[in-house]
Amino acid sequence: MVDSIVSAIRSVSGILMLDRSSDIDHNRSVVAFAGSPTAVSEAAFRAIDEASRHINMELHTGVHPRIGAADVVPFVPLSEATLQDCADVAYELGKRVGQELNIPVYLYEAAALRPERKRLENIRRGGYEKLRDTIAIDPALEPDFGPSAVGAAGATIIGARNPLIAFNIYLSTGDIKIAQSIARTIRQSSGGLPFVKALGFLVQDRAQVSINLTDFTQTSLPTVIEAVRSEAYKRGVEIQQTELIGLIPQAALIEVARWYLQLEFLQASQILETQIANSLA
Amino acid sequence: MVDSIVSAIRSVSGILMLDRSSDIDHNRSVVAFAGSPTAVSEAAFRAIDEASRHINMELHTGVHPRIGAADVVPFVPLSEATLQDCADVAYELGKRVGQELNIPVYLYEAAALRPERKRLENIRRGGYEKLRDTIAIDPALEPDFGPSAVGAAGATIIGARNPLIAFNIYLSTGDIKIAQSIARTIRQSSGGLPFVKALGFLVQDRAQVSINLTDFTQTSLPTVIEAVRSEAYKRGVEIQQTELIGLIPQAALIEVARWYLQLEFLQASQILETQIANSLA
Repeated sequence: MVDSIVSAIRSVSGILMLDRSSDIDHNRSVVAFAGSPTAVSEAAFRAIDEASRHINMELHTGVHPRIGAADVVPFVPLSEATLQDCADVAYELGKRVGQELNIPVYLYEAAALRPERKRLENIRRGGYEKLRDTIAIDPALEPDFGPSAVGAAGATIIGARNPLIAFNIYLSTGDIKIAQSIARTIRQSSGGLPFVKALGFLVQDRAQVSINLTDFTQTSLPTVIEAVRSEAYKRGVEIQQTELIGLIPQAALIEVARWYLQLEFLQASQILETQIANSLA
Repeated sequence: MVDSIVSAIRSVSGILMLDRSSDIDHNRSVVAFAGSPTAVSEAAFRAIDEASRHINMELHTGVHPRIGAADVVPFVPLSEATLQDCADVAYELGKRVGQELNIPVYLYEAAALRPERKRLENIRRGGYEKLRDTIAIDPALEPDFGPSAVGAAGATIIGARNPLIAFNIYLSTGDIKIAQSIARTIRQSSGGLPFVKALGFLVQDRAQVSINLTDFTQTSLPTVIEAVRSEAYKRGVEIQQTELIGLIPQAALIEVARWYLQLEFLQASQILETQIANSLA
């Protein structure tokens, strides 16, 4: 089923397929692709269309918050593009999805039309089930585009943001309360680290802190990991393993080496493969 | 002066200039470039020629061991090339430098013609001054190519090896004995870590452990850094800062993230820039 979505994306000329990953436990897939504004907009439209035909939210289960078949579609600036370019693409795509696919659309982050929709979690709170039951009667749930009614495809959240790093930290415990407590301690919304979103889950009997780091240039990846390590230690557990979801910008890896190896002045231009790519370009 | 060497390299068509860095304290520069076997051989020849015209070893000072103006010229396999391809280039270049430039040439590592010349430090022991005084009388110093006599350009060591990581670790002390003691403890030749070469220096009144890691896939960069950190701690000092000399392969940075962030399954294909480069290629 993810294959058919990937095929729909690939069917647009000029698209570079960057990554796809499926998380069985979260019952959730991420597909990443790049291209010109026109190409990525068309590819995203076809992907949303394809997902809405195959995924029935009435039958979907998964521990991760979600409100639709194509749950969230973020545009991220690469090379010369700006965040505003991405917000413009998000706006036009949202309008088209609402009109042509008859799916409710909410615009978020840099593309948000209402301040309370800047934060993805505000839009997604309560999940598909709550949205289905109250979208017609709650004015706060009125979509930016499309009908105030959801079908089996649910709703789609479209937006523009800087690159984020999504990763999961597995703890040496099966106690979800510890993961939830650590998540509450480190996330910005509860007074923790800026640019950190975190939730606690139980995945294959292991407690997992699932994290979105929305600006790794402001709060580094090591800062987040070491905060979780320290909070875990206080609760008598350890980090067993971590996993990256999707892609990571190279600059974040450079920051990791700067931090742990004390390679204070490490630059991308010192990476062999980067220099070869730059010389060839 | 390094500029003129870089220009000589650039004058060969098909050369990709990758990196140049000069270390004032070591009075030593590294220039890295890539290209076809024919192109890199020609560029290296012109660089050796240029260095030999500008650098007078009778006037040269510097704490790092060295025997010539173009001290060491390693060829490293990239993309489809093998170590043997690099050894072949080293052999042909060595022959030409000996014949056309009249400079004594020693072949080392994968290009070595004598087993005792596999190790660079064996060839360089005693430095330019010892070589100058004994090359004519010591059969062990008979060069692989060129005359058994050195001029102001000294001798050149040419070879083939896998990518190495060269870096310096500054300690929170001005006591060179501590750097030398740590270097002795961690290096392979004194029974320490495999694939690690290390020397202790005093650089701008700070003790420095200068390291060559010749196979980071066998002994990881974190293993070396943490060994130095632990040995420093035992001697009552700390790592203040580290610095990379030249380039680092991306795989080594991935290993750093795997190690410190416990991102056990991190792959190059998860790096955004790498995926974009791969998609474009």
